[in-house]
Amino acid sequence: MDLDIIKQLTQQSDSKILLCVLDGLGGLPGIKGRTELEDAATPNLDKLAHNSDLGLSIPVERGITPGSGPGHLALFGYDPLQYQIGRGALEATGIEFKLQDNDIAARGNFCTVDQDGNISDRRAGRIPTDACKKLTKSIEEAIHIDGYEVFVKPVKEHRFILVIRGEALSDQITETDPQALGVPPKIVSPLISNAENTSAIVNSVVEQALNVIAAEKQANSLTLRGWSSKPTMPHFADTWNIKAAAIAAYPMYKGLANIVGMDVLDGGTSIDEEINTLEKSWNDYDFFFLHYKNTDTYGEDGNFPEKKAAIEYYDSLVPRLTSLKPDVMIVTGDHSSPAIMAAHSWHPVPLLLSSKYVRYNKHSGFSEKECNVGNLGMLYAKNLMTLAFAHAGRLTKYGA
Amino acid sequence: MDLDIIKQLTQQSDSKILLCVLDGLGGLPGIKGRTELEDAATPNLDKLAHNSDLGLSIPVERGITPGSGPGHLALFGYDPLQYQIGRGALEATGIEFKLQDNDIAARGNFCTVDQDGNISDRRAGRIPTDACKKLTKSIEEAIHIDGYEVFVKPVKEHRFILVIRGEALSDQITETDPQALGVPPKIVSPLISNAENTSAIVNSVVEQALNVIAAEKQANSLTLRGWSSKPTMPHFADTWNIKAAAIAAYPMYKGLANIVGMDVLDGGTSIDEEINTLEKSWNDYDFFFLHYKNTDTYGEDGNFPEKKAAIEYYDSLVPRLTSLKPDVMIVTGDHSSPAIMAAHSWHPVPLLLSSKYVRYNKHSGFSEKECNVGNLGMLYAKNLMTLAFAHAGRLTKYGA
Repeated sequence: MDLDIIKQLTQQSDSKILLCVLDGLGGLPGIKGRTELEDAATPNLDKLAHNSDLGLSIPVERGITPGSGPGHLALFGYDPLQYQIGRGALEATGIEFKLQDNDIAARGNFCTVDQDGNISDRRAGRIPTDACKKLTKSIEEAIHIDGYEVFVKPVKEHRFILVIRGEALSDQITETDPQALGVPPKIVSPLISNAENTSAIVNSVVEQALNVIAAEKQANSLTLRGWSSKPTMPHFADTWNIKAAAIAAYPMYKGLANIVGMDVLDGGTSIDEEINTLEKSWNDYDFFFLHYKNTDTYGEDGNFPEKKAAIEYYDSLVPRLTSLKPDVMIVTGDHSSPAIMAAHSWHPVPLLLSSKYVRYNKHSGFSEKECNVGNLGMLYAKNLMTLAFAHAGRLTKYGA
Repeated sequence: MDLDIIKQLTQQSDSKILLCVLDGLGGLPGIKGRTELEDAATPNLDKLAHNSDLGLSIPVERGITPGSGPGHLALFGYDPLQYQIGRGALEATGIEFKLQDNDIAARGNFCTVDQDGNISDRRAGRIPTDACKKLTKSIEEAIHIDGYEVFVKPVKEHRFILVIRGEALSDQITETDPQALGVPPKIVSPLISNAENTSAIVNSVVEQALNVIAAEKQANSLTLRGWSSKPTMPHFADTWNIKAAAIAAYPMYKGLANIVGMDVLDGGTSIDEEINTLEKSWNDYDFFFLHYKNTDTYGEDGNFPEKKAAIEYYDSLVPRLTSLKPDVMIVTGDHSSPAIMAAHSWHPVPLLLSSKYVRYNKHSGFSEKECNVGNLGMLYAKNLMTLAFAHAGRLTKYGA
């Protein structure tokens, strides 16, 4: 539904909404015929499910596997096919680098190349973040391009961002990451004719950077991808007429929340710290996006037992969330990450909505199977926010 | 979802997809309160369903009964409201008549008229195909229109196609088929002002044709419908980045597959021969569309027992299909054809998707009732291909 229409329907309320995103929550049956969520012991989520409405959320479209960007944008109420954020812009915002209108940003990876220049480790042995800080600083100081500013900032381990600032830059250029081993990083080419100047600038930037790190043992080369400009989209807090905060430990999710217009609070480095922040800030905001990364991490690692354990750990923290008494509490994921696939997937994501205005079916628990027969049915993630705000009494009638 | 986006997401794989279309599969409860599919003994489909995801497919939109064209286009991933193929073009392609850009085509039926010129048999007693061949040849030889070529080609029994080739022809003209008995065939009129010339040409063509067949006992008149030009749409094999083949016994389905850009293999005259071809060509293609007509034929005839028997016969052949070990196997229909309606209908169609990446619910069998509680929920047929290609590992992630 058009966000302009929604904006006209919003109304003030004291109600509070808690959106709990367990990244990559959805799964597929493992050896025992049960998904990670079904196999996990989740007494607290099961109890919550008993009095909640359940359903399945389609992140983008049937059969479409979303990256983290589209997955979260949809949960925040944006049509992920209409609003898109490049990886570079996402990473930049994630480390609170304020992109300007004439910037282009890329996500960088340090990598290791052999004596022939071919990539032997795409992540440079995941060098420590401190090493990344040192290298990016040296590179940033060494690079000089007439008329342009170049920023090279560390993210985490081998990851950094590269931002170029100046006139007439275009993000319509190719990536240097070959996404494969045994081949060298690529040269940048323009995707459209008036990106030729940008392309030449980037190739010069890379050349200068490589001179700085050539003698490194692990991080002796780099790749760049996800070229993007500063994204523009309707402001979340304005659209929904609510004070909105995001609590996440990982940069990318902070970045996403910042881009859409939520206040980003200090999520620390774990879900426990995130919930500490949630409790402390409970009275300061009416909407909270609380992100949990571990479910996706282990799903993508193909580690069924650890993904199951991550779900169980989250479950143990649920009483801390419910005791805050949110008027609407949603538990879902931005996509599925079945351990048997060791990757993001397209499968619809379990969805739980708790509120005093649910029809609830006395579900036996929170699982893919129960969600499949839940009152909410199968819905597009982009429609979830409307549902949340309706249950929170924050949307008035449409039409006379 | 936009086919341009999908095209960018496709990736190569060795996986094979088998799309089994049981034409008009969906049904309605008969006297015993069970649909044709529910009443049929289908041990092989039931076994397959046990480990598959089930759902219901909406061919076009709620309450919309599709013809064979939209029904199949949707299954092939085309929005049937955006992409349309006229019946004439469909029939032409079905007999491998290559339409050119300035052609218009109609489907023709020989019919019987009484001494007053009123239709007494809309199908001219289903004259043998050989008789149809002779008549169309005589008509084609007799017709002369200055500056235009006219083709009259037999299809099957009383059915033929009429194609007119030349400058400035329009398919925006009315049909001559009154779709009723006891009335005469209609005269063609233009639907838009610059179709007046075409309209006059067609009326002259019909007049000349009637002179040839006036003395026939059964096929002494004809009707024309489904005026259409050569359709244009994105190429299936290109869009999905796959070698695609169609196996069908009936011309229309071969035609549809040809129009969208599948290789049309020799389907012979029965499902047994079709499967012979499937087995022989298994290594040559990665996508197969396998069409089965009998379910629809008996559904449209209002023959519940024979439709049920056709389903049972198909079931007996399922082991030949599964033993090929397709990575993704889909069993569904292009629409419902409930025997109690003796017609196509709008009812959602049973859908089964077998792959190693399904959530499966240990369904007791393949039926409308089980499909109604399946993991796939209710979905639009046009989204089925994305789902198939996702399960086949042939679609990469959307967005960062």
